[in-house]
Amino acid sequence: MKSSQMKVSDIGEKQLIERIIEKSRTCSIHNPADFTDLDNKTSIGDDSALTNIDLKENSYLVSSSDMLIQSSHFPQDMTYFQMGYKSVVVNVSDLASMGADNIGFLLNIAIPKDTLIDDFDDLICGVIRACDDYHIPLIGGDTNEANEIILSGTAIGQVDKDKALMKYGFKEGDLVCITGELGLAALGFELLNMKQLLKNNLFEMVDLEDKINRAYEIDSTLCDMALFKALKPDARYNEGHILRELNTDENRITATDITDGLASEFYEILNSDKREYQFNINQPNNNQFNNDSNSSYSKGIRIYEDKLPVEDEFKEIANALGIDYLDLFLHVGEDFEFLFTMNKELKDQLENELNFYVIGEITEKNTVEIVLSNGTIEKISSKGYQHLK
Amino acid sequence: MKSSQMKVSDIGEKQLIERIIEKSRTCSIHNPADFTDLDNKTSIGDDSALTNIDLKENSYLVSSSDMLIQSSHFPQDMTYFQMGYKSVVVNVSDLASMGADNIGFLLNIAIPKDTLIDDFDDLICGVIRACDDYHIPLIGGDTNEANEIILSGTAIGQVDKDKALMKYGFKEGDLVCITGELGLAALGFELLNMKQLLKNNLFEMVDLEDKINRAYEIDSTLCDMALFKALKPDARYNEGHILRELNTDENRITATDITDGLASEFYEILNSDKREYQFNINQPNNNQFNNDSNSSYSKGIRIYEDKLPVEDEFKEIANALGIDYLDLFLHVGEDFEFLFTMNKELKDQLENELNFYVIGEITEKNTVEIVLSNGTIEKISSKGYQHLK
Repeated sequence: MKSSQMKVSDIGEKQLIERIIEKSRTCSIHNPADFTDLDNKTSIGDDSALTNIDLKENSYLVSSSDMLIQSSHFPQDMTYFQMGYKSVVVNVSDLASMGADNIGFLLNIAIPKDTLIDDFDDLICGVIRACDDYHIPLIGGDTNEANEIILSGTAIGQVDKDKALMKYGFKEGDLVCITGELGLAALGFELLNMKQLLKNNLFEMVDLEDKINRAYEIDSTLCDMALFKALKPDARYNEGHILRELNTDENRITATDITDGLASEFYEILNSDKREYQFNINQPNNNQFNNDSNSSYSKGIRIYEDKLPVEDEFKEIANALGIDYLDLFLHVGEDFEFLFTMNKELKDQLENELNFYVIGEITEKNTVEIVLSNGTIEKISSKGYQHLK
Repeated sequence: MKSSQMKVSDIGEKQLIERIIEKSRTCSIHNPADFTDLDNKTSIGDDSALTNIDLKENSYLVSSSDMLIQSSHFPQDMTYFQMGYKSVVVNVSDLASMGADNIGFLLNIAIPKDTLIDDFDDLICGVIRACDDYHIPLIGGDTNEANEIILSGTAIGQVDKDKALMKYGFKEGDLVCITGELGLAALGFELLNMKQLLKNNLFEMVDLEDKINRAYEIDSTLCDMALFKALKPDARYNEGHILRELNTDENRITATDITDGLASEFYEILNSDKREYQFNINQPNNNQFNNDSNSSYSKGIRIYEDKLPVEDEFKEIANALGIDYLDLFLHVGEDFEFLFTMNKELKDQLENELNFYVIGEITEKNTVEIVLSNGTIEKISSKGYQHLK
């Protein structure tokens, strides 16, 4: 049987694991000497992965686990390589936004049994390529059968205790910043959805086709970039390391990766601030973690439309597609840029090391608001993306 | 709306996470002081879990990740509590069979959106109860939507470098042992399947009903125990700790948990032995990990039917159900007992500390064989359970 016709059911679970081990040998970071040489031991194929780590004194073990499910997280146009790559990105992003150093990555894979071996290999190549890009060895996991592709990854790392980039710790007057342009991935998903609808003939095609064509006429490069960012996101690995170095007891930097939309992350960090306060005064109650807009916070966030890094072409394209560009910016995620806060005094120093945008500040008011270009002020609700709603 | 009618889609992902955090407070090991007190920090709700660990010198970080999928791993009669419990057991079992101390557990949960909140709560209670039973704090994870229940867990631990219970390291003449009776879970799954077929009217019912009734007539307690072991397996947590203490450079103990059937694990440990040899002479090749029966091993395994811990009633029940009892014993897994090997000289010492059964020995022959009660010797093939085949 030709390799290109073979399905995963032709070789079974154990041989799939062997394929993963073999493929991982091709990558520099996955040289067996790097992660399997345990003083002349190997844990490949054993019940658990053993990792020879030099956990620094005064450091935390950092772990994060995220599951991606084909029908929820992978647009139909996503390649197997891109799915594999993204499964690493989402987890590394969570570690990076704590300022952590990577230790290892475990991946549980579920795939339909009629998946082609070639597609499985592409998926694994995506995983290993991302592991290489983010300097994190693939150390374990398993394979299973399901009726859609499910990739559940766990990233393990470590961070110095006094350098960890928490979500809380900001003070009134701190600058609210992001590491890059937001909304591109959101625009990409919109374009992918529209193209899919067009392909499936589900709606009036002429209108939809006109909209897409108009978007490409405005700026085809921007449209292509949006598609690329939706299909192959990157984690802000270096950014996490740069921010943590400036993070001190005197000048706390806080950070989180933007996965569910900027607005949702605003409420996340306000909740985190509140939770930390309640944790320290030791008054937990059942409602302490509510993140609805009725909650009262001891701080607030104000951002400015004019400070958002948005090109005019982006606004025009959103307009042509019938979408409010601020919705793309605020209420859709998957950009994996960082939202971070810092003391004003750090701004000049950080500008030498990192590209970032100051978009607002921490206020004493119990609200999240945006000052629009026309001068009016609007409240920002928390409606980021939530599964299961 | 009454809580009992509420579905997970009524409250959404973030509130589900809060429910998990709240429920975890009810357990002794999950007292916030145990796992969230990071020198007056808390990482609850942050991008990653921070764990304040005291990683011992000369130890490995141990990690294992396993995914359970409803249609493959959960019989229809399994409760939500039991599903949650099992998701911890399968991962803790992998850590225990390395002799590791537990550090933390992360769980990614995917559930259909019409799942009742009460059922979700039961599932979480199962998870937390198991975390309590095995002294491993739940430190992270996420929730997602899928069309069936998927529980992907990751257990993290540590083990002294010279105490790790690898799969390899056995010598000719070493005893082959198991920690408990095998086949019970397998019998339980058979009974559950048969009852399900009966319920669904899929086959000639009279014959099937007769078989089940006959099994219960032979020994109803054994049948009930079999069902219980299939639905609520346990991990051999203490056994792993006892075995590792006796594990030294002079007298290597090897261990693995029996998940895919004893026969399959026999070939696993022979492959592991071979892999370690090739790893150390540094001659990797693409076929080194084949575990088919044509592979050549430098050692072999011989077990004896008369030494297997099997009650006569178990054989009779298998017979009544039309199953070869040796198939249940050798070729079906999910018992989570340990297969381990040790030097003969350790036997007396270990008998003071652990219940176990010596079922055979490591041979110099390149075969896996069983000496039957009638004196004939048969080869054991590797056909354990494999997904995706």
